[in-house]
Amino acid sequence: MEAILLAIGDELTSGQTLETNSAWLAQQLAKRGIWVRGHRTVRDDRADIAAALAEAADAAELVLVTGGLGPTADDLTRQGLAQAMGAELVTDDDSLRQIEDFFARRNRPMNEGNRIQAMLPESAEVLPNPIGTAPGIAARVGGSLVLVMPGVPREMRKMFQEQIAPRLANGEKVILFSSVHLAGIGESDAGGILADLMCRSGDVIVGTTASGGTVSARITARGSSLAQAQQRIEQVAGQIRDRLGSKVFGEGEATLASAVGDLLTRRGQSVSTAESCTGGLVAKLLTDVPGSSGYFRGSVVAYDNQVKQRLLGVASGDLEAHGAVSQAVAAAMARGARSSLGTDWALSTTGIAGPGGGSGEKPVGLVYLAVAWEGGTQVFEHRYPGDRETMRLRTALGALDHLRRRLLGPQEARDA
Amino acid sequence: MEAILLAIGDELTSGQTLETNSAWLAQQLAKRGIWVRGHRTVRDDRADIAAALAEAADAAELVLVTGGLGPTADDLTRQGLAQAMGAELVTDDDSLRQIEDFFARRNRPMNEGNRIQAMLPESAEVLPNPIGTAPGIAARVGGSLVLVMPGVPREMRKMFQEQIAPRLANGEKVILFSSVHLAGIGESDAGGILADLMCRSGDVIVGTTASGGTVSARITARGSSLAQAQQRIEQVAGQIRDRLGSKVFGEGEATLASAVGDLLTRRGQSVSTAESCTGGLVAKLLTDVPGSSGYFRGSVVAYDNQVKQRLLGVASGDLEAHGAVSQAVAAAMARGARSSLGTDWALSTTGIAGPGGGSGEKPVGLVYLAVAWEGGTQVFEHRYPGDRETMRLRTALGALDHLRRRLLGPQEARDA
Repeated sequence: MEAILLAIGDELTSGQTLETNSAWLAQQLAKRGIWVRGHRTVRDDRADIAAALAEAADAAELVLVTGGLGPTADDLTRQGLAQAMGAELVTDDDSLRQIEDFFARRNRPMNEGNRIQAMLPESAEVLPNPIGTAPGIAARVGGSLVLVMPGVPREMRKMFQEQIAPRLANGEKVILFSSVHLAGIGESDAGGILADLMCRSGDVIVGTTASGGTVSARITARGSSLAQAQQRIEQVAGQIRDRLGSKVFGEGEATLASAVGDLLTRRGQSVSTAESCTGGLVAKLLTDVPGSSGYFRGSVVAYDNQVKQRLLGVASGDLEAHGAVSQAVAAAMARGARSSLGTDWALSTTGIAGPGGGSGEKPVGLVYLAVAWEGGTQVFEHRYPGDRETMRLRTALGALDHLRRRLLGPQEARDA
Repeated sequence: MEAILLAIGDELTSGQTLETNSAWLAQQLAKRGIWVRGHRTVRDDRADIAAALAEAADAAELVLVTGGLGPTADDLTRQGLAQAMGAELVTDDDSLRQIEDFFARRNRPMNEGNRIQAMLPESAEVLPNPIGTAPGIAARVGGSLVLVMPGVPREMRKMFQEQIAPRLANGEKVILFSSVHLAGIGESDAGGILADLMCRSGDVIVGTTASGGTVSARITARGSSLAQAQQRIEQVAGQIRDRLGSKVFGEGEATLASAVGDLLTRRGQSVSTAESCTGGLVAKLLTDVPGSSGYFRGSVVAYDNQVKQRLLGVASGDLEAHGAVSQAVAAAMARGARSSLGTDWALSTTGIAGPGGGSGEKPVGLVYLAVAWEGGTQVFEHRYPGDRETMRLRTALGALDHLRRRLLGPQEARDA
């Protein structure tokens, strides 16, 4: 079975917003053995939407559409679909009641535009939206099944999983994707170590990507059953783990923060952070993980030197002699967090995030990270290139990786 | 003048790689007054590429194509273009020499596939690639100009700037984009207030989007000169500001955190945060802004109740009587941050981020935010729907917006 994906919105065609729904949907369909033939992005124009729907329905049995279901005058997907079907728009009473309920529960007045969200082409079917006001639509255009979802990624994903996925027949071959996530190694070095696995043919394909500060090995496997594809993935993932050792921190949905959380949970230990240049980002990443209250106690974001002294007990002499961005202050911050927050482990960050504040001796990108525990304190110096955002993310991930290696054992900490 | 953008590659249609070239190109074209009508992503298939090229050339005068020019067997853009033109592929001697030079300079053997990179359809023209092996192609399909670039973003951007941009006649009209960012109002309410501005015709188009927790009014203006388009943007932005008043927090690159930073800088005042459920996110958002060390002093992330007591001075009686997620504790946290971090203003957050930890009385999504200043403390109760990530982002943005309104004045704080 083949599919075409259609994304609708002026903010997408103009490039103001990056279109990410189609990439996510393509991966979901691949898992079910449905092959995506192409994507199209169309502006908020009724005639263009109708024409794209008709062309897509000509070219594939399945058409998934996202966007243009909102409550405002520029949302025209409903109208474009009706035109492609040669049908009138009618109000669906159940949908209208659900939208009214949505606003009543939130004590907010309902807008006239929301009434249009309850309309759909005659003979089409409603796909309920439990977390937003825009219901989805299932319809037929020519011989093809057309399924329309909201453009908001969170609502789209929920609707796909709950309403769309159960309607899709599986294709002949199953395709599975998996990712093995790496830390402390660059993409080209990882590519060198995995070169012979990265051939472009056969039922398993390996590639590398770098995204959000993390390098990953991507595995794509086809099989005549889910079990066979899964087994092929597992075999290659095993080879990657063997070659890269402790540089592998997890697979699939794992993050560096969740990997650290798993190790702390296993030991029944706790962690805190003392952050200067990352400004709360390490704590934010740790608390992104559901259940992190089991091991994360808190953090002192000490942007100001007085806060470093008052809440973390950093000596004014260290600040004067070495400056805030120094090995001595990083160590004192980590020890201070450990003692004032009462945790087994503590992480600290201090560095020059830029764009201003750098000097010849201490350039933008210079950072000191420390890990403190009952047995000691270890400080690491790094130079992270890139803009402010990139530097802060790399610093936060670097700090988490140093803690992860220390939690694995002294040998892994040395390899970092 | 209208354009259609075509991106080619299996890794794009399958969703393994996010297609970002088209968004970048659309913005480049808009600056030159060329309107992008739509994007298409096509797999590495000669017939699909030829069909998409023919359809695009039918629909627009200009077609920009990226990808599928590489040296491997799955790169078929050249062949698809030749098929759409009804032309043969011939070798371009200059290109072949340049590719041979490219490898000679790097002391690397040249692959047979690289020889194909020097081929192009008869009557087409070569676009040199100074930083890669794949030359681009300029050709005519029907009455339309088709310009083909490599898919690697770095090579594509350089070729666009050096080879393509100078060939593009500026459209008759210049197109400018701007966004007016809103807080404390939902997208449908904003759409209701701006409904009459959101008509689909004329030289100014207004739309709304919700992205990253922020609702924005997007303005697109055409003009016969940059100054005229700018003036049209400014006129509509003024109308939006008049109607939405203090709900407008900024335009363009502004964020809620940078708006708060501007207000604090103007007053010469400082801020700190005490965070429970947001786990450092408010501090992270504040310190995303370059120069935030001018007003942001630090933060206590108090995930644990003992940290709330020890570092923020929250009374154990309040924690026992009301629980950590309560009006009393939110107020005590903000007051505690203000005094222990020594700032003019302080923000606090405490709530139930989920997925676990909710109860009938205190469900997931319940949050208390407080703002403390010399004159008092104000606490706000909210229920933010959505998953853990969404709830945390809305909480952090809500806290920043309450501070922003209080900084604007008591009247704006009451309207919140």
